[in-house]
Amino acid sequence: MSDPLRLGIAGLGTVGAGVLILLQEQQDLLRQRCGRALQVTAVSSRDRYKNRGVDLASGVTWHEDARALAKAAHVDVVIELIGGAEGIARQVVETALDAGKHVVTANKALLALHGSELAARAEKADRALCYEAAVGGGIPVVKAIREGLAANRFERVYGILNGTCNYILTKMENTGDDFDKVLLEAQGLGYAEADPSFDVDGIDTAHKLSILASLAYGTHVDFPGVYIEGIRHIGALDIQFAREFGYRIKLLGLARRTARGIEQRVHPCMAPLGSPISEVGGVTNAVVAVGNYAGQSVFEGPGAGAGPTASAVIADIVDIARNQILPPFAAPSSRLERAPASPMDLHQGAYYVRLTVLDQPGVMAAITAIMAEQGVSIDSIIQRGRAPGAGVPVVLITHETEEARMNQVLAQLTALKQVTEPPVRIRIEKL
Amino acid sequence: MSDPLRLGIAGLGTVGAGVLILLQEQQDLLRQRCGRALQVTAVSSRDRYKNRGVDLASGVTWHEDARALAKAAHVDVVIELIGGAEGIARQVVETALDAGKHVVTANKALLALHGSELAARAEKADRALCYEAAVGGGIPVVKAIREGLAANRFERVYGILNGTCNYILTKMENTGDDFDKVLLEAQGLGYAEADPSFDVDGIDTAHKLSILASLAYGTHVDFPGVYIEGIRHIGALDIQFAREFGYRIKLLGLARRTARGIEQRVHPCMAPLGSPISEVGGVTNAVVAVGNYAGQSVFEGPGAGAGPTASAVIADIVDIARNQILPPFAAPSSRLERAPASPMDLHQGAYYVRLTVLDQPGVMAAITAIMAEQGVSIDSIIQRGRAPGAGVPVVLITHETEEARMNQVLAQLTALKQVTEPPVRIRIEKL
Repeated sequence: MSDPLRLGIAGLGTVGAGVLILLQEQQDLLRQRCGRALQVTAVSSRDRYKNRGVDLASGVTWHEDARALAKAAHVDVVIELIGGAEGIARQVVETALDAGKHVVTANKALLALHGSELAARAEKADRALCYEAAVGGGIPVVKAIREGLAANRFERVYGILNGTCNYILTKMENTGDDFDKVLLEAQGLGYAEADPSFDVDGIDTAHKLSILASLAYGTHVDFPGVYIEGIRHIGALDIQFAREFGYRIKLLGLARRTARGIEQRVHPCMAPLGSPISEVGGVTNAVVAVGNYAGQSVFEGPGAGAGPTASAVIADIVDIARNQILPPFAAPSSRLERAPASPMDLHQGAYYVRLTVLDQPGVMAAITAIMAEQGVSIDSIIQRGRAPGAGVPVVLITHETEEARMNQVLAQLTALKQVTEPPVRIRIEKL
Repeated sequence: MSDPLRLGIAGLGTVGAGVLILLQEQQDLLRQRCGRALQVTAVSSRDRYKNRGVDLASGVTWHEDARALAKAAHVDVVIELIGGAEGIARQVVETALDAGKHVVTANKALLALHGSELAARAEKADRALCYEAAVGGGIPVVKAIREGLAANRFERVYGILNGTCNYILTKMENTGDDFDKVLLEAQGLGYAEADPSFDVDGIDTAHKLSILASLAYGTHVDFPGVYIEGIRHIGALDIQFAREFGYRIKLLGLARRTARGIEQRVHPCMAPLGSPISEVGGVTNAVVAVGNYAGQSVFEGPGAGAGPTASAVIADIVDIARNQILPPFAAPSSRLERAPASPMDLHQGAYYVRLTVLDQPGVMAAITAIMAEQGVSIDSIIQRGRAPGAGVPVVLITHETEEARMNQVLAQLTALKQVTEPPVRIRIEKL
């Protein structure tokens, strides 16, 4: 047996406490699987005296300042669980790598914004920078794409990467309730934050997508290149119409290499019923990777929570203990490609558009004239209900067209005097 | 860049040719991801002059005898794609390891029967023995369980591990046809072998399950310990009744640690509609691993075929090229546990039983008396249709009970003079 691997944990929130508990409860199992002991030698947190349901063994040094832990002599691996793309979290990771420590982190924002630079720093120090917990919670999808599917070019990689949004959309479908009501409930249950914008506006999904895209395409992490739309504008009516047309609405992150660069998109999608992703409900996450040899692989599991996240963090630690260390993004960072972002305006696809219009003669003619003028062809158009002189929903499904044309169509539809509310546009995906 | 990794491929059937094509087509990608070239230096096959759709580069040595390839000086990794648990395949793997070569194989039968002994041999030689392609085709599930979920104890691991059986069961459901008819069609389409027994009698599933169980539980591979039942006895009526009761019939391999040892079972199951595994149709494979921290992870993908299998074989080669080498079964073989097989007689569960009985007064009384006598309580019992004096189906659903009691019940039911055909028993799983 080799020497114990000495761990320093920065951040003892829900996940940090989960990591401590797992390390304690499965000590023997982990020693057997790693061929050496995993030993916590240092921790750092704002509140030293909070009850976390776990006893810190004697011999654990408490650091007031996580940056001191990051360079402490008795630590081999720094586990950063503070969170946030800047500030202490970033300083801890940089300090640790510069001090020759391995780093394990669950911090997707940090990786999305500074992943490439941190990878270069890790390689310079010849240390690991691992982040299985940053994407897909407990699902080992980083490893699957970087190693298990390493023989493939990826036709596309996409997934449900945010449990909060998937919970809200599933609940909206099951209850028929509107977004605001379901969000409030989700906040009450702890499935959504008091300030939910990180989740419901798609930013968290975009962080994760940019990491997956880098892994799949061998490119630098390009968070600014992600097109982002959240789910606040999705109404109960849209959920209902989706069902009628044979779809289910999911917030997806999708990445693809096009002739013009890497396309990264986060927005609500019409996912065909029967596709694996459409069946994934509640807080579960799922990633689909379509490889040119492996075909379509689907990975599903809990996307968040102390247990799954701790499982992923410790999988990284086990890799380090077993001396299984790879460049953070599959290829050494000097060989990662700087691919341009494929412009969203050139995206091709079919669209669902829901309008609220005054129930007056001539409305359909005005709408179809705009579509014709922009060269967007209509697959179906339906008006639901009658309310002469008042607002009724009209739903359009287009054939495949270009995003820029649809933007034109939507601008003109919005300007129509019979259109009383902003149109809702949802992209239809072939999955 | 390091030296090229020199590959010797033994066996150029569908998979071998797929591996050659992948290596040729994605040469640059693989060189980038591995940091070194992958170079085929030797091949071996029975028929040298068959057209395989791929040109062998000059500099490739042709070996008439695969055992000569296995110890050839210019080979670093031997890729065994011959198949079969004994004979040449086994000799090639043993010879290669003893000659200090790494081995990659897709041979589940070989691993199921000789896995532990080969693992010890690989460790003695300090070489890799990799087999991602042996389980779940292109799905990187060996890596997921051995590494990605390494922090977990597994409450259970189960899956659809044979595409042929899943294709047949899916087709039976979609068409209402009987097993024999669908099997013939599957043979015509190349989805089933001329001699289908390896697949439809559950042996292939059992090979794969014994490998998964070893990985999950840190035990020696125990193929003889697997309880095996195939799908030949499943009738169109069972598929139909399953649907009515809220289930879909799937051939599953299931492993679990019980107080009495490792339970490994392969048999048709009633899988609840809505469970992820029940939604997996056609030739797709799926593995579900329930970890005590990660929760339920689901892995789905194509279970066979040249492309997916080549993807898995090359993932193993990439690991070796990147120097990512682990003991074959998660722990060094000297530390694998010899756990007893948990006796099937003690298995607890609910059961579906379909009887064909003469439509006569007193039949139900006779059936229920037997159940009562054995202490098996009935959840529901239905007789479908009326045909006085002729055979009609009676379906029983039991509450949870012990396998041994059900065996008694079935023996007594079979002996009833009103029962005209062997009963069909299908276990109901909570998934």
